[in-house]
Amino acid sequence: MPVLPRFSAFSPAVFAACLTLAGPAAFAEGGPQQHLRPLLNQAGERVLEYDWPMLKVGTGEYEEGPTGVTVFHFQEKSQVAVDVRGGGPGTVNAAYMELGYDMPELDTVVFAGGSWYGLEATTAVATALKDDGIRDGDAFSLEPSIAMSVGSIIFDFGSRRLNEIYPDKRLAQAAFRAADSGRFPLGAHGAGRFAKTGGFFGCNAYSGQGGAYREFGEVKIATFTVVNALGAVTDRDGNAVACYGEDGWPSPLKTRDLMSEFVAKREAPEAGNRKNTTVSLVVTNQKMTPAELKRLAAQVHTSMARGLQPFATIFDGDVLYAVSTGELDETVFSSAELGTLASEVMWDAILSSVPPQPAHPEFRDRQVLDAGALAKLGGHYRFSPKASLQVEYRDGELYARATGERDVYAIGREEPVRLLPVDATDFTVDSRYPLRLRFAADGQLVLNPGHWQQLGRRQ
Amino acid sequence: MPVLPRFSAFSPAVFAACLTLAGPAAFAEGGPQQHLRPLLNQAGERVLEYDWPMLKVGTGEYEEGPTGVTVFHFQEKSQVAVDVRGGGPGTVNAAYMELGYDMPELDTVVFAGGSWYGLEATTAVATALKDDGIRDGDAFSLEPSIAMSVGSIIFDFGSRRLNEIYPDKRLAQAAFRAADSGRFPLGAHGAGRFAKTGGFFGCNAYSGQGGAYREFGEVKIATFTVVNALGAVTDRDGNAVACYGEDGWPSPLKTRDLMSEFVAKREAPEAGNRKNTTVSLVVTNQKMTPAELKRLAAQVHTSMARGLQPFATIFDGDVLYAVSTGELDETVFSSAELGTLASEVMWDAILSSVPPQPAHPEFRDRQVLDAGALAKLGGHYRFSPKASLQVEYRDGELYARATGERDVYAIGREEPVRLLPVDATDFTVDSRYPLRLRFAADGQLVLNPGHWQQLGRRQ
Amino acid sequence: MPVLPRFSAFSPAVFAACLTLAGPAAFAEGGPQQHLRPLLNQAGERVLEYDWPMLKVGTGEYEEGPTGVTVFHFQEKSQVAVDVRGGGPGTVNAAYMELGYDMPELDTVVFAGGSWYGLEATTAVATALKDDGIRDGDAFSLEPSIAMSVGSIIFDFGSRRLNEIYPDKRLAQAAFRAADSGRFPLGAHGAGRFAKTGGFFGCNAYSGQGGAYREFGEVKIATFTVVNALGAVTDRDGNAVACYGEDGWPSPLKTRDLMSEFVAKREAPEAGNRKNTTVSLVVTNQKMTPAELKRLAAQVHTSMARGLQPFATIFDGDVLYAVSTGELDETVFSSAELGTLASEVMWDAILSSVPPQPAHPEFRDRQVLDAGALAKLGGHYRFSPKASLQVEYRDGELYARATGERDVYAIGREEPVRLLPVDATDFTVDSRYPLRLRFAADGQLVLNPGHWQQLGRRQ
Amino acid sequence: MPVLPRFSAFSPAVFAACLTLAGPAAFAEGGPQQHLRPLLNQAGERVLEYDWPMLKVGTGEYEEGPTGVTVFHFQEKSQVAVDVRGGGPGTVNAAYMELGYDMPELDTVVFAGGSWYGLEATTAVATALKDDGIRDGDAFSLEPSIAMSVGSIIFDFGSRRLNEIYPDKRLAQAAFRAADSGRFPLGAHGAGRFAKTGGFFGCNAYSGQGGAYREFGEVKIATFTVVNALGAVTDRDGNAVACYGEDGWPSPLKTRDLMSEFVAKREAPEAGNRKNTTVSLVVTNQKMTPAELKRLAAQVHTSMARGLQPFATIFDGDVLYAVSTGELDETVFSSAELGTLASEVMWDAILSSVPPQPAHPEFRDRQVLDAGALAKLGGHYRFSPKASLQVEYRDGELYARATGERDVYAIGREEPVRLLPVDATDFTVDSRYPLRLRFAADGQLVLNPGHWQQLGRRQ
Repeated sequence: MPVLPRFSAFSPAVFAACLTLAGPAAFAEGGPQQHLRPLLNQAGERVLEYDWPMLKVGTGEYEEGPTGVTVFHFQEKSQVAVDVRGGGPGTVNAAYMELGYDMPELDTVVFAGGSWYGLEATTAVATALKDDGIRDGDAFSLEPSIAMSVGSIIFDFGSRRLNEIYPDKRLAQAAFRAADSGRFPLGAHGAGRFAKTGGFFGCNAYSGQGGAYREFGEVKIATFTVVNALGAVTDRDGNAVACYGEDGWPSPLKTRDLMSEFVAKREAPEAGNRKNTTVSLVVTNQKMTPAELKRLAAQVHTSMARGLQPFATIFDGDVLYAVSTGELDETVFSSAELGTLASEVMWDAILSSVPPQPAHPEFRDRQVLDAGALAKLGGHYRFSPKASLQVEYRDGELYARATGERDVYAIGREEPVRLLPVDATDFTVDSRYPLRLRFAADGQLVLNPGHWQQLGRRQ
Repeated sequence: MPVLPRFSAFSPAVFAACLTLAGPAAFAEGGPQQHLRPLLNQAGERVLEYDWPMLKVGTGEYEEGPTGVTVFHFQEKSQVAVDVRGGGPGTVNAAYMELGYDMPELDTVVFAGGSWYGLEATTAVATALKDDGIRDGDAFSLEPSIAMSVGSIIFDFGSRRLNEIYPDKRLAQAAFRAADSGRFPLGAHGAGRFAKTGGFFGCNAYSGQGGAYREFGEVKIATFTVVNALGAVTDRDGNAVACYGEDGWPSPLKTRDLMSEFVAKREAPEAGNRKNTTVSLVVTNQKMTPAELKRLAAQVHTSMARGLQPFATIFDGDVLYAVSTGELDETVFSSAELGTLASEVMWDAILSSVPPQPAHPEFRDRQVLDAGALAKLGGHYRFSPKASLQVEYRDGELYARATGERDVYAIGREEPVRLLPVDATDFTVDSRYPLRLRFAADGQLVLNPGHWQQLGRRQ
Repeated sequence: MPVLPRFSAFSPAVFAACLTLAGPAAFAEGGPQQHLRPLLNQAGERVLEYDWPMLKVGTGEYEEGPTGVTVFHFQEKSQVAVDVRGGGPGTVNAAYMELGYDMPELDTVVFAGGSWYGLEATTAVATALKDDGIRDGDAFSLEPSIAMSVGSIIFDFGSRRLNEIYPDKRLAQAAFRAADSGRFPLGAHGAGRFAKTGGFFGCNAYSGQGGAYREFGEVKIATFTVVNALGAVTDRDGNAVACYGEDGWPSPLKTRDLMSEFVAKREAPEAGNRKNTTVSLVVTNQKMTPAELKRLAAQVHTSMARGLQPFATIFDGDVLYAVSTGELDETVFSSAELGTLASEVMWDAILSSVPPQPAHPEFRDRQVLDAGALAKLGGHYRFSPKASLQVEYRDGELYARATGERDVYAIGREEPVRLLPVDATDFTVDSRYPLRLRFAADGQLVLNPGHWQQLGRRQ
Repeated sequence: MPVLPRFSAFSPAVFAACLTLAGPAAFAEGGPQQHLRPLLNQAGERVLEYDWPMLKVGTGEYEEGPTGVTVFHFQEKSQVAVDVRGGGPGTVNAAYMELGYDMPELDTVVFAGGSWYGLEATTAVATALKDDGIRDGDAFSLEPSIAMSVGSIIFDFGSRRLNEIYPDKRLAQAAFRAADSGRFPLGAHGAGRFAKTGGFFGCNAYSGQGGAYREFGEVKIATFTVVNALGAVTDRDGNAVACYGEDGWPSPLKTRDLMSEFVAKREAPEAGNRKNTTVSLVVTNQKMTPAELKRLAAQVHTSMARGLQPFATIFDGDVLYAVSTGELDETVFSSAELGTLASEVMWDAILSSVPPQPAHPEFRDRQVLDAGALAKLGGHYRFSPKASLQVEYRDGELYARATGERDVYAIGREEPVRLLPVDATDFTVDSRYPLRLRFAADGQLVLNPGHWQQLGRRQ
């Protein structure tokens, strides 16, 4: 019986973009010696265009993770408020923001992958602002001139990637220096390069970063969010917009049905699956007092419970930053009105974060390759210090088993898993989630070739 | 042209319950001399039944407000966490709850009308616990024995009522003493006696208190909420379930349409309309650590942004209490799972809070009464120290004008408003919101006779 | 061997004021039927005089507790910030104050005895403001007109008093209505009527409320504090200014010596002794932003660790309110400067709170009364529902034993304690703390007659 | 008239240690190209010895700042709480610590100079923990295995140093890797390398890091603090232990006198002087609940107001971390007792932070050098991109004037200041604070040669 594509409620798309692979050095994960190849400010397939010179955005990615960072650089000191709601937040200088000074001090908001390690990106952008002479040590000035960089991170290790590469100082400073105004790549880019959603229901949909921009007369509102939620992205009709469902799940899939039935279906999720976070930013040009801005942050953050269900759980680390550039020194909207408008713009941003979901590879009934060719694919493939696959030829078929400290997606460490042939180079396995194994000409094994690929070197 | 009922999206119901009116003393609003008639633990039209002896509920109301109080009394000391999200919260002992002690101390959660004045209800229940010998001064015991009563309030003055009667010590202690287990009146009762929702869109729908109860195996979850939100109550299909719309508004009315169009429609709301609050309680019997319970509170409170849109604005004073009775000393659900289940139960509670909405009275084309009878109805009617109506007969018709410090609903202080005849005793006016004026046999003028009536004494 | 007065480091004073006792009804502690005799705005032995019409102070006491309340009433809406530091705070509306609105809203700060039960005093003053027509329901005004009453409490049960009478609505509203400007009674008055300090070292010194007032040019600073600290009041020379020490303790007594030696001396304190709180208020007329005022609150509250050692422990419930009346719309001092000045004024307030300490009664070597007279004093004396003494004549001497649920100071429930004769009516016992038992002519037994007396009715 | 040494209340000491200077590359402040010479784990003149293998300490310094970092590395995951009190805190992951999970997660506490830029040190130690394989990405484990590094910074720019070099990733990771147990350098080392205190009174005393360690039976308590306070370090006798006073100030100098008289003396301090911070750490081996540990943090932090006066002002950024290693799983002391003990140990730490204060150089009445030699010293000396001195020979004397963006200590940009000869190479100026200018053989100008020296390169 062929494994049917189980992806529901989103038109599946074959993900064709095949990125150039970096050389062997890319595998030297961790350690101060790693040489990763930064990819900066790339356009992506979909881009939000916005008209706001005050706000520059830079993204950087390590293709070898893949993981990344997104830097929002305000060209003038701006007022900021923070709202922390999740159970596992990562923050820099959150305590200061709570003090409510009526003084614009913010320079940058930095989002990154890499869990708490990714906070290095936030502090690195602060020091880049100083190193580049934009800010200094506030020696004798009356105006605040020390760089204020705040930021948060998402968890993109564990079930997402086989390695633990994180966005470091080098990548963050490069992304900061590449920042520009007007374009924001949507989907699996920057900090959202390897995000997932819906783990609470076992959806494990690919996710990314979203953005939306609207003008209401003179008032500008921009929203950004890196969606890595335990919950499922939900549209205004109540549909879960991306979910690898179980066999027999309806299409379209209503989040309300997931919510009411998850108790019966639930299994204790693996620890590695219980780490999530959605980090968000709302920006307006209307001047606001610290108290009003804080209320705006609370309202918009709360409203995200509509587009992400569930939201703000103990396994999320949700943080939202609200920024007022103060360019428009007039109270056009009350904080409640602005919050309501921004909440809708934020819902748009959430929806825009969802990338096209890879489809399940269709496998053949019989091998495409002969025994000799199959046997040659056997070997030990190493993805990271913790993840390896042993591929063996047996009785006309290939089998794979994880041999490192951890499973390799659906391929566990207990039993060898039969590889199902897709074509002359690609195989798959019988799993709820699509998994493609491509044996490359250079002897490497690429899992899920394309945007979220993991590269195994033959040992 | 007859004024058509403008209520949309909820099957209108003629509200027939005619309550016995209290005597003249009832009008002595405010002051230590007021003699209000408490109404305790009344059943209401709709009642939530639940099976949980640990939790007793008592409601009390001053019919003359009308306004009221709802007391939740836990029969054993329980663990509590609080989550404050709105811009105008009223709380007692919130600072203590933030300290996170792992020690059950809570006795009661008290919700009341009366804005900050209604906090007297919370402290009064504490002293009732002591006066009644249930708790004491913790003189020499190791276990906490001082009563811990926490609570919050809603704003039910302003555009809701013409008087400023509040739930005081006497009412709260009476409600506490009348508390029992198993039944919770739904709709406009207790603290929700004169709540409204949807003011943000001009809906001004009548609201109330809601509750829901479910068991998941051995795990019990009860949710309660007094819904007085600036936002509109929204069901799982996205409909605004109660709203007095403007002419031409569609039915059913989608909240998403309100959200996207309110900018065009908005007028600066009166200050009196910009005071709202939703206060809520979620209870489980599963034992939880302080940190987990706090996360549960945050998650469930956040989830309410689905059923109330917008939610947690600067004009709301939203507070949620999460209580674990600890009867079930087993971790059946993680905090995230429990939070997700409870969020759905809370949405049910929100929906159950909506009472049948009074319809617009249908008026006749011509007077039912003769000129003499009409003229006799003229006079000065006083509703409270701040609100009075001058009713005058002129050219075969009655006109009314507000003469106190404030408007009387749609009847302002500038221009006399023509009263449109409904039947031999009742009149109405041309307004977005239903208004019925009944000239009673005893010379009194009753506005909106029934559950939300306001009583005017002829001077 | 005669028991020598053990009080150290404060010139002991015989406390002579003998207050008229209320009638028997005064004993009906607790319950809605209690008829306590309020004592309002009394002058006290020592009074702080200050020149600030904006600030009225009212104190009320129930002599039968004794316990009381202190109400600070600002004649115009003022800006307020709160700083909570202790482990057992009692607060009303603390969550609101944290929101940092730049809008004067405060009407009153209320301090009371009675532990959490005394919070009724804070809410009662709010409703008094409304009942008296000073504030209303904010119906249609733009300016905030709802009464904002905040406040905190001290624990004065347990080892302090034998009964559990608390400052209730009636007392608080009476104190509010008696408030006036210019005079503040120092020592054991108002909320500080039955406070104690130094329990951490076994000092158990009598305490009270303190206040200080200074002008720095046009800038006014007033500080008030109800000192019921676990720690010892310490002056600027490092002396513990009031402490019933153990035999052999040096005089003057240095707090530093207590701090360094308490580990060796410590015994597990009774639960009833581990409840303390210092509640404080700092007021300035200089206008401040919410963030600055919050910093002022933090700085001054922190500085109190000099005058109270230790301070802000888990057994304290320390709360400080900082208020800016905004009368002086000029930034004369930075927040840090104002905080430093106010910290010194607060230290003065702490020191002014200490009342003269009752001395140990000096007893005679032999009985003053004959056997017949002694025998007549025997009987059962009831102080409260929980505290009673059985006095028995045996072999020419009187013995007392506690018979209720709790000890009566040094007289326990296990062994009868011999009463040592002082004069024809008074007796004492061998104890670290002074205890005087006076058999009154009307058959009552008065413990510690005078300001902190407890009255026992013969059964 | 000779300028007398004005240092009071501390036995002045000539500071003789002359450190080897790094080469010219060291001057390339800022920018990713800087090559600073890290100095690791140096012993210092005074060292705290402690016996606690669980706790390793590493310090690193850039001599060219000078500035540094201090890393506390717990060898097993420990429980942590944070208490933020100052008006300008710098923190990493403070929001997470507030959630109160009962789970040891802490790895390191990092203190650094460099204001907010120094937060890079905290995040760098987190990534070092991962890079070195001590912690990972928590992929599939139940126990927390992600590195948790928290930390705070002090402001050591402005009036302290002429350059803006900060402790960066390289320095912090090196210090982390050099960490060892048992010894902690006291005084101007690590994060406290260029700290100052008493700016509020114009003291500008040199400061540093302090530590103290005590055992109470099986209970261990260690305290550490980097003292860079606006206030003055004060001993248990009330003396300001380090202060460059004005002429005529008494010796010993009582802090209480400073506090009461600063209003008369105060001048508006320069902005650069109004940046301070004291960051502290208290560690115990007794196991504590999150709530107890949080109380401990609050109590100890508050107690520091005795040793630092004023404390916790709006110009300080005070943060304290409390850590329980949990090695001793027995409640020997209550949180209040532990807090009291630790408060005394912390006071000891504060006092130990004060380094010997450089004395004013004594100058000669007449030149030591002849005109030719003097003239040769003239030239332009550059200390950092912002600070330079122009030294000119005129009429037999040398004059210096600041030519960059900022003053060079007492040498301003307006008027040339006469240099007073000390010996053949050294000069000084007439100033409240000691300033020594040494013309080195290699053509460089060293200000305050020794521990706090600033190096000027002749252009």
